[in-house]
Amino acid sequence: MEQLTIIKVGGKIVEDAQSLEKLLSDFANIPGHKLLVHGGGRSATKVASDLGIETRMVGGRRVTDTKMLNVVTMVYGGLINKRIVAQLQARDINALGLTGADMNVIHSVRRKPVLVKAEVSGLDIDHMVDYGYVGDVDSCDGEMLSILIKKGIVPVMAPLTHDGQGHLLNTNADTIAGETAKALANYFDVTLVYCFEKKGVLMNEDDDESVIPQITSSDFGQLVTDGVISGGMIPKIDNALSACKAGVKQVIITQMTDLAGKEGTVIKM
Amino acid sequence: MEQLTIIKVGGKIVEDAQSLEKLLSDFANIPGHKLLVHGGGRSATKVASDLGIETRMVGGRRVTDTKMLNVVTMVYGGLINKRIVAQLQARDINALGLTGADMNVIHSVRRKPVLVKAEVSGLDIDHMVDYGYVGDVDSCDGEMLSILIKKGIVPVMAPLTHDGQGHLLNTNADTIAGETAKALANYFDVTLVYCFEKKGVLMNEDDDESVIPQITSSDFGQLVTDGVISGGMIPKIDNALSACKAGVKQVIITQMTDLAGKEGTVIKM
Repeated sequence: MEQLTIIKVGGKIVEDAQSLEKLLSDFANIPGHKLLVHGGGRSATKVASDLGIETRMVGGRRVTDTKMLNVVTMVYGGLINKRIVAQLQARDINALGLTGADMNVIHSVRRKPVLVKAEVSGLDIDHMVDYGYVGDVDSCDGEMLSILIKKGIVPVMAPLTHDGQGHLLNTNADTIAGETAKALANYFDVTLVYCFEKKGVLMNEDDDESVIPQITSSDFGQLVTDGVISGGMIPKIDNALSACKAGVKQVIITQMTDLAGKEGTVIKM
Repeated sequence: MEQLTIIKVGGKIVEDAQSLEKLLSDFANIPGHKLLVHGGGRSATKVASDLGIETRMVGGRRVTDTKMLNVVTMVYGGLINKRIVAQLQARDINALGLTGADMNVIHSVRRKPVLVKAEVSGLDIDHMVDYGYVGDVDSCDGEMLSILIKKGIVPVMAPLTHDGQGHLLNTNADTIAGETAKALANYFDVTLVYCFEKKGVLMNEDDDESVIPQITSSDFGQLVTDGVISGGMIPKIDNALSACKAGVKQVIITQMTDLAGKEGTVIKM
């Protein structure tokens, strides 16, 4: 099968002109088929604030009411996505900006109100939180994407999906990347690269050079038991392993400066 | 050749929830292949104003500096475009939102500063106006669009193009519709429908029922000489005739309530 590299970058990288420039130039140099998934939370917060709309985060997740949905639709689907597309076109990369609603690529279910623990929300007591127009992915259709990719198109995906009932839904970009990788694993040998602040998953969090070169499903349990992998890294690696289980060849966690993933942590079955 | 209907609607229709609902339901009912081009100027002006950015129009055209380019990218490419896509998906129309930068569909040249006559600008004297990031279309590639359309995809096009050097350009939606129609005339029998406030081109502007049923290139000159067609309608029909000359089967100018164009003005070679 042909190779496909999927790169997921957070808002921080795409929102700064200089790091975006570096990212797009590195991305353009990746050989073969590729796909980019981007975030954009900081810009959304900035535009919301400029519009007098308050940003409310609970446990690191954005509460998305109607006004905030308009903001993320403008910022993720418009401002950031189309700017990346235009800049990739300038590098002769035939980019196509997409949300999950476009061509019905990613269908989601609106998240029901959930009980959020006090230690997560930072409030005094556990309480129910309605995250609003936030989507949990229930299907991703790789077929049209694969046809376009094989014709030389490079999809650029914003963290928005839809519910099939006319509503866009704010959706975690890591999840978009993982689900897209799984759906495309039927058509390509997929390598999924998560750009991270550190060089990879660290053996010792105080030593930026202590990158664990490889984690397999059999290592994972032991690393968690030993306390090497903890906190937010557990679901990240758990997701990566589930992507591998669903046919993704490998998941790499690495720094933006190393998109080829030569120095990051490789996660494999 | 297979039929393709291209509908162009202005901002007024897509910015009001009720008229948008009606439009999308009528649009969904059009049989066969179709494509939608939308405007969105009023929303852009509103969002700009909410962000404290002043809108400057000269001769009915928006001056688009860097800040305004961000606004139209958010509003046209994000808010309006993706909302339409999600709502069409809810009607089982497999919509795909596009700007001209996506898949390099429409390439433009940034407009150089132009001399604007006093009677157009409303100012005392003729003066040079730099419209900023405004694009004049120089090429439209119908090939990828035609492949997608034949696979059942319904493109929804925002009035933005790009210059191939990394800049998005604000572009007149009528022009986007006309150029797209011409480019697709190589692949389909294209009918281009411009939604208009009136039922069609009127013989007598005070009588809304006096629709001219058909205008051909040979009628046109006489209608202008007789003063029946004047003002902004002259370039509109001129563009329509140039589209027909380039292979578009017919252009229809009609009301939004009559998308099938049964009562509008048909413009043909």
